Amino acid sequence: MTGHPRKKIEIIVESPLQRAVLDWLGQQGVKGWSLLPRVIGGGEHGERSGDDITRAFDNVMIVAVAAEPVAREVLDQFHQRFTNAVAIVYISDVEVARPGRF
Amino acid sequence: MTGHPRKKIEIIVESPLQRAVLDWLGQQGVKGWSLLPRVIGGGEHGERSGDDITRAFDNVMIVAVAAEPVAREVLDQFHQRFTNAVAIVYISDVEVARPGRF
Amino acid sequence: MTGHPRKKIEIIVESPLQRAVLDWLGQQGVKGWSLLPRVIGGGEHGERSGDDITRAFDNVMIVAVAAEPVAREVLDQFHQRFTNAVAIVYISDVEVARPGRF
Repeated sequence: MTGHPRKKIEIIVESPLQRAVLDWLGQQGVKGWSLLPRVIGGGEHGERSGDDITRAFDNVMIVAVAAEPVAREVLDQFHQRFTNAVAIVYISDVEVARPGRF
Repeated sequence: MTGHPRKKIEIIVESPLQRAVLDWLGQQGVKGWSLLPRVIGGGEHGERSGDDITRAFDNVMIVAVAAEPVAREVLDQFHQRFTNAVAIVYISDVEVARPGRF
Repeated sequence: MTGHPRKKIEIIVESPLQRAVLDWLGQQGVKGWSLLPRVIGGGEHGERSGDDITRAFDNVMIVAVAAEPVAREVLDQFHQRFTNAVAIVYISDVEVARPGRF
């Protein structure tokens, strides 16, 4: 058997936006998602300095698998839809066994 | 130095099955794994409606890196082995620095 | 619009090293990162036997997106820098929408 190509969408976003992002993904045609709560973010904006590791966990990671056109549209439109969101969005190639689910 | 190609296996599954899945991965030749507990799932089956975000965290994400034949066999056989599992399984390309470990 | 190619870096490491690894990633040119705490690891070294699932969560997963040269240097140098670390490191292809951030 050969795997079927799909795209994985990963979105790391501040947790207050999680509901809006999940609803929007459904509207874009994403059929299912997983959400990892309590993700800590840091980087050049100063989050890495000081006690960022111990502060509140304020990000979530959303993972979904979708057909390429859906994933590409999500990548293209996310920052227009969530203009001011503190978010990271990327897509990548995966292979799935049951293509009908995605 | 160049990275060595391997496959990443990702399995999102209901937490009561985690032990059975991990044992089965070992039998398939997977040498190591990471498990992320407390993953929330949602999608077309109604999980996204209502208060899914606040309900019990009932999924886990298992991540492992393996040689391609091992990963492909996991992808091919998972749904036969765990027929009724609520699970998402996919594989993807990664590069590792120490190929002997995978 | 087309996505811009970048590399995702994933590092699973024992939690006492998280600060040192994050600092080192910044020195390597990684501009931002996400950290998933409470990752359970297991595998051939015996961690999978016994009650590993219920023991303390002692790993973290660090995820970052970077330009390919940065990611490749991280992959190449990690095990030299953290010689005795219990760690898994791999890189993979992703597409991002806003290349200036990575």
